[in-house]
Amino acid sequence: MAIEQALEELADLLEDRFTRSEAELEQHGHSEAYFANTPPDAVVFPRNTNEVSQIVKICAAHDCPVIGWGAGTSLEGHALAVRGGISVDFRHMNKVLDVNAEDMDVVVQPGITREELNQELRHTGLFFPVDPGANASLGGMASTRCSGTTAVRYGTMRENVIALEVVLADGRIIRTGTRARKSASGYDLTGMFVGAEGTLGLITELTVRLKGQPEAVSAATCAFPDMGAAIDTVIQTIQMGVPMARIEFIDAASAGMVNAYSGTALPDAPHLLIEFHGSDTVVAEQAETFGELARENGALSFEWSTKPEDRKRLWAARHNAAYAIFAAFPGKRGLSTDVCVPISNLAQAIAETQADIDASPLPGPLVGHVGDGNFHALLVFDPEVPAELDEAMRLSSRMADRALELGGTVTGEHGIGMGKLGYMQAEHGEAWDVMGQLKTAMDPQNIMNPGKLVRSN
Amino acid sequence: MAIEQALEELADLLEDRFTRSEAELEQHGHSEAYFANTPPDAVVFPRNTNEVSQIVKICAAHDCPVIGWGAGTSLEGHALAVRGGISVDFRHMNKVLDVNAEDMDVVVQPGITREELNQELRHTGLFFPVDPGANASLGGMASTRCSGTTAVRYGTMRENVIALEVVLADGRIIRTGTRARKSASGYDLTGMFVGAEGTLGLITELTVRLKGQPEAVSAATCAFPDMGAAIDTVIQTIQMGVPMARIEFIDAASAGMVNAYSGTALPDAPHLLIEFHGSDTVVAEQAETFGELARENGALSFEWSTKPEDRKRLWAARHNAAYAIFAAFPGKRGLSTDVCVPISNLAQAIAETQADIDASPLPGPLVGHVGDGNFHALLVFDPEVPAELDEAMRLSSRMADRALELGGTVTGEHGIGMGKLGYMQAEHGEAWDVMGQLKTAMDPQNIMNPGKLVRSN
Repeated sequence: MAIEQALEELADLLEDRFTRSEAELEQHGHSEAYFANTPPDAVVFPRNTNEVSQIVKICAAHDCPVIGWGAGTSLEGHALAVRGGISVDFRHMNKVLDVNAEDMDVVVQPGITREELNQELRHTGLFFPVDPGANASLGGMASTRCSGTTAVRYGTMRENVIALEVVLADGRIIRTGTRARKSASGYDLTGMFVGAEGTLGLITELTVRLKGQPEAVSAATCAFPDMGAAIDTVIQTIQMGVPMARIEFIDAASAGMVNAYSGTALPDAPHLLIEFHGSDTVVAEQAETFGELARENGALSFEWSTKPEDRKRLWAARHNAAYAIFAAFPGKRGLSTDVCVPISNLAQAIAETQADIDASPLPGPLVGHVGDGNFHALLVFDPEVPAELDEAMRLSSRMADRALELGGTVTGEHGIGMGKLGYMQAEHGEAWDVMGQLKTAMDPQNIMNPGKLVRSN
Repeated sequence: MAIEQALEELADLLEDRFTRSEAELEQHGHSEAYFANTPPDAVVFPRNTNEVSQIVKICAAHDCPVIGWGAGTSLEGHALAVRGGISVDFRHMNKVLDVNAEDMDVVVQPGITREELNQELRHTGLFFPVDPGANASLGGMASTRCSGTTAVRYGTMRENVIALEVVLADGRIIRTGTRARKSASGYDLTGMFVGAEGTLGLITELTVRLKGQPEAVSAATCAFPDMGAAIDTVIQTIQMGVPMARIEFIDAASAGMVNAYSGTALPDAPHLLIEFHGSDTVVAEQAETFGELARENGALSFEWSTKPEDRKRLWAARHNAAYAIFAAFPGKRGLSTDVCVPISNLAQAIAETQADIDASPLPGPLVGHVGDGNFHALLVFDPEVPAELDEAMRLSSRMADRALELGGTVTGEHGIGMGKLGYMQAEHGEAWDVMGQLKTAMDPQNIMNPGKLVRSN
């Protein structure tokens, strides 16, 4: 069999950095989501770009699927080996190659995680701003086009990746972009690989933008009588040009679970959690402007603090929201939805979603990156009761359909992976065919993460 | 002949919106740059997307080149009909289709110019921030991936176009992106058409981001003893996280010509021209921070003002810099270079360029978007003396080679068009072949703006 031939050659090439051990296959066939495990045939651990190129050439010669693996934090099963083949684990390619402080960029290998990167940057006065919560790898973050709580201020991976090195489906190594801050030179290949979920090539090096650590940071919590008032406050704040660093929505149900799990004392109401970055003066002014708008919109409370420990506690609580929810429902699993709509339609999208969830037997607390129009329901189901997963899927599907009706997208930041493939035709129409044409041009054998992103062939 | 057949069918379809008049052909074969006129065989003026689709289908049936035309402000001859065919002039498709104030976006047709758009937005409290100086059309700006003086704060067309409608090379109409502020749903087709210079399809509708008009604006001029001191000030200001809205460099030669043309009184020295946007407090604080850094770097003067008339005069003077330079050299023409390098290498790039120009018989005043690392030499030559154009080309070529050596790009914002095609292999290497693969996949007949961007075939 062709894959077996590829595996033999890969074993020869990589020796002890090639494995078919049960434990490794199992780990690389597992996702954080609700999908069945789908292990690869082998796992390889390259040390450098040339090895990645050799690996892909061997796989191309034998039609063996090639799937990149970073930190395994995908919520949509991006890295599941649905057609077998090999998982290329980038754990040994996790170095910072070049910190360019004056240019405010850094060159890294794809296996480094965002926490490791920020740890390495801590003495430079700079930080990498994209924060999806999970300690994801940079290669995975780029491939998913992820974002998170800070996108409202600093952008997503689309805006923060400026150059790449990529191994193509035939093993060629290319460089896209430069370290110049902008360019009008040719097709935006960097942008094409960001969000491609490994279906066009493997990212082997990234240059990403850094930001200056703000002189002052303030964090605030603000409770509202209802979610509409919270969203109006957000819209008005954005229109005033107040550059919030984070602005997160959590509903009353989530607030209660977060209190129970993280020891916070949020009132039993929908909340905004906000962070401002700037100078002392700027941060104070921004907090004051926001507070005024919130009061005008009927806010029930507004607490703000510049103390690092308060802020740290707040964002730890927010990032642990999913764990807080699971802790409230022992033994259950969650399906995390990820719709994103124009912000003018966000109140409607959330209200209709809440009505759906209220009418369903499943709990589904909501959290959201409200400045971007992106929110998640964590639909909690019993993995032992198939009807519950079906119900979660039905609710998720209604949210996706609604997002499209409201001019939005089925995935703001989690990507397509296994979970959103069924909505691609509805979201993109003929543009999905164009994605297929590009895939065929770049990977005619369909060996790069096959079964993902484009129409299955 | 095939093209003649296409022209007959187009004339039938469009009646008086099809023309072969000398004057129109001449105008659509002309560029603002130094290239020879290259008129199309005909010009068409579609009224809507379906007509554009019909036009492209006719052209596809007869292998007739199709070239989009906006405002004709390209500096690299993007729209020259180097292989004949038709020019698709979007002057009738110049409407604002939808202003979404809450979402801070607007849907427009490609023929609208940025000044027309901002005129239509003037009562909304919002504005479209990308400002290349010229009153370009939005379709052209997107296709060129242009930027200008405000990119340091608001980004380029890459960051500001969020969705497109495009007519493909076979006449299919697709939509890319949505009005949601972010998405992780599939290949970034929007990003692929932005900067594609019309080689993959014709943009027939754009959704672009808007910004809130700032409460306060201050503009400043700051003279420095040398350009290194100016650039150090810029780097430090960016690292402090001060969000300058514009930060422009002009050399001493340009300052003198600007004074003579626009009646300003800039000292005979290199200058930074700066603009800050924000609240009154924020703007004052930013100007103060900048002033301190400038003084520490030896600034000779620092004048700032929040008066709209001072600001208007300043930016008019800056935008008229090219005219000021031509006024100083009557009867001459100019070759505008456009390199962009990592900002840490900008001082070196500028110094070596100035030395080159000093050693040359041609004048070449420098202006630059220094916050982005992007600068232009306007190389002034006598169109009657062929050796002078050769010398301008030689200087331009040295600048391009140097930009690549310094980790930059040959074009920060003007695009490739006719002028930079010769540097694509050097800048992109095998990635240029990948661009060719994408082009072939999307336009196998090579009818969309042939002879541009990819390797000529």
